[in-house]
Amino acid sequence: MPERIGKYTINLLSGPAILGYAAVAGKKEGEGPLGNEFDYIYNDAAAGQNSWEKAESTMHSDAVRRAIAKAGKTPDDINIIFAGDLLPQCMGTNFGIRELNIPLSGVYGACSTMALSLANAAIWVDSSAADLAVASTSSHFCSAEKQFRMPLEYGGQRSPTCQWTATAAGAAVVGRGESGVVIEKAAIGRIIDLGIKDANNMGASMAPAAAATIADFLSDTGSAPSDYDMILTGDLGKIGSELLKDLLQKENGIDISAVHNDCGMMMFDANKQEDIYAGGSGCGCSGAIICSHILRRMNEGELNNVLFVGTGALLSSVSPLQSETVPGIAHAVLLRRKQ
Amino acid sequence: MPERIGKYTINLLSGPAILGYAAVAGKKEGEGPLGNEFDYIYNDAAAGQNSWEKAESTMHSDAVRRAIAKAGKTPDDINIIFAGDLLPQCMGTNFGIRELNIPLSGVYGACSTMALSLANAAIWVDSSAADLAVASTSSHFCSAEKQFRMPLEYGGQRSPTCQWTATAAGAAVVGRGESGVVIEKAAIGRIIDLGIKDANNMGASMAPAAAATIADFLSDTGSAPSDYDMILTGDLGKIGSELLKDLLQKENGIDISAVHNDCGMMMFDANKQEDIYAGGSGCGCSGAIICSHILRRMNEGELNNVLFVGTGALLSSVSPLQSETVPGIAHAVLLRRKQ
Repeated sequence: MPERIGKYTINLLSGPAILGYAAVAGKKEGEGPLGNEFDYIYNDAAAGQNSWEKAESTMHSDAVRRAIAKAGKTPDDINIIFAGDLLPQCMGTNFGIRELNIPLSGVYGACSTMALSLANAAIWVDSSAADLAVASTSSHFCSAEKQFRMPLEYGGQRSPTCQWTATAAGAAVVGRGESGVVIEKAAIGRIIDLGIKDANNMGASMAPAAAATIADFLSDTGSAPSDYDMILTGDLGKIGSELLKDLLQKENGIDISAVHNDCGMMMFDANKQEDIYAGGSGCGCSGAIICSHILRRMNEGELNNVLFVGTGALLSSVSPLQSETVPGIAHAVLLRRKQ
Repeated sequence: MPERIGKYTINLLSGPAILGYAAVAGKKEGEGPLGNEFDYIYNDAAAGQNSWEKAESTMHSDAVRRAIAKAGKTPDDINIIFAGDLLPQCMGTNFGIRELNIPLSGVYGACSTMALSLANAAIWVDSSAADLAVASTSSHFCSAEKQFRMPLEYGGQRSPTCQWTATAAGAAVVGRGESGVVIEKAAIGRIIDLGIKDANNMGASMAPAAAATIADFLSDTGSAPSDYDMILTGDLGKIGSELLKDLLQKENGIDISAVHNDCGMMMFDANKQEDIYAGGSGCGCSGAIICSHILRRMNEGELNNVLFVGTGALLSSVSPLQSETVPGIAHAVLLRRKQ
């Protein structure tokens, strides 16, 4: 049963458990430092489909099916799926999961989607609105570039502050049970917009939102960064991560540097892989890393509690062309290993 | 506290109440049969902005502010807003409400958004995850045509099966209290796709989803159409409404004709107003009608219980160009006047 603590945080008293999880990714992600953590690598970026959007849909659906199977369940057992992606009208989600016949509560949170969908799934399970809920998301480099920047065929030069949208999908099944990792708390973030207009510098537009959500969460729960094994943002990249640490230190006197990591900096090796620049991004980046590397390490006892702060840049494919700023948002879920 | 009944339906035992609601609309909607029900009519389709998207954002924000004020609250009192719209990356929502500083759980459900956001808001309040939640949505004829069909400047001919996207926004504040109308039950729908490919015939693509959700809800609750003062779909329009009634009669032996109405058929008068064809549509159509006409009639005792079934066509701005079919979805909320 959920209980509000402080102004923004919700305590999930029953401890909804992650009963299964899965991640799939593309070739470049497979060649990154976490490549061997994913359940499946698509060496064909098109995933056998005839469009990038359908490729993303295929990967999204694959991650959801794998997570459900790994939880020992079937799609028919699932009461609800919270899912979304970056594409207009969430095409990656809707066309991906339509055959699963699971009630769908579509979410839109840009790259914060994994945290947002996990928070909603956990609240529904904690409150008995659902017995089993799925949280999932996806992104695809080629479908995202086409929507937000330029068709790949143009061969446009990328800016050095750019992040590389991950081709990946992640899914988790939340329910009651004796699993090793529970979602203990959640906090939904507010839109923070400090006026960044450069759509090629997402990290800068999202860092203030991440700082606000982390500061709110620590304040609501009366905890300090040292109480967590990891505060994991997804995906600020290199530039946004530095800004986040600076902002929290200067504005709030909070030093997270000893425990901070960022999914955008974990997905690729910018020194070895081409064109990564500031790091990874896209809904699927944090989605796939949470639903592989992080949950594996938690289940194996390497990490006991991880504050996962999903960050999203709420620009649209149209808004930068209208000289608009890039609003940021960040949602937090506290993952804890059951002792 | 939510309680699952049957396979798809959730009983909201505390009866989350609608404490305030508001709707704003454009000039054409203001000239329709419900024109005098809306809180404000924008005679300027651009709402003083320099783009259709920003005009929609302005209207969305206006509806939310009005609903909160009418509930006797301030934005700072609200724990969470569930909001979304039709535009890519929900630009109407995110740019509209960013100044309100309310935690945002973005939703995507196309024209089913008002039902989806109301269901989520009600479940959060019922479970104590929120004390006060807002549900809101918007659409704008000009921003929608530009995304999904053709820029208005082309002067393209409209198909007779077309629906007219309403320029409108609706918002409701859900909380605990002595209000006249409560959200008693909710059911999240599944994606149903029977293979309709005509993006100018949304009614046909959504009718099967509406039929499935209505049949599921009646079965889960052991009720019949005659138990409701109104079964209100939004927005199937004329063609979709006929298909829905036929489908339910033939496939399920359920006759809803005595109590059925549809927001798409209520917004405009197709005999008097130009180019309406099959009726109204867009997230804002049912959003504005629920948050004005329907809730007013319920509060005044003219209607005691209304099963509101929001319907959405989950196509994207890209999918019809890729020869894709149009998936449909429908979510139900049961509104009941407190005796």
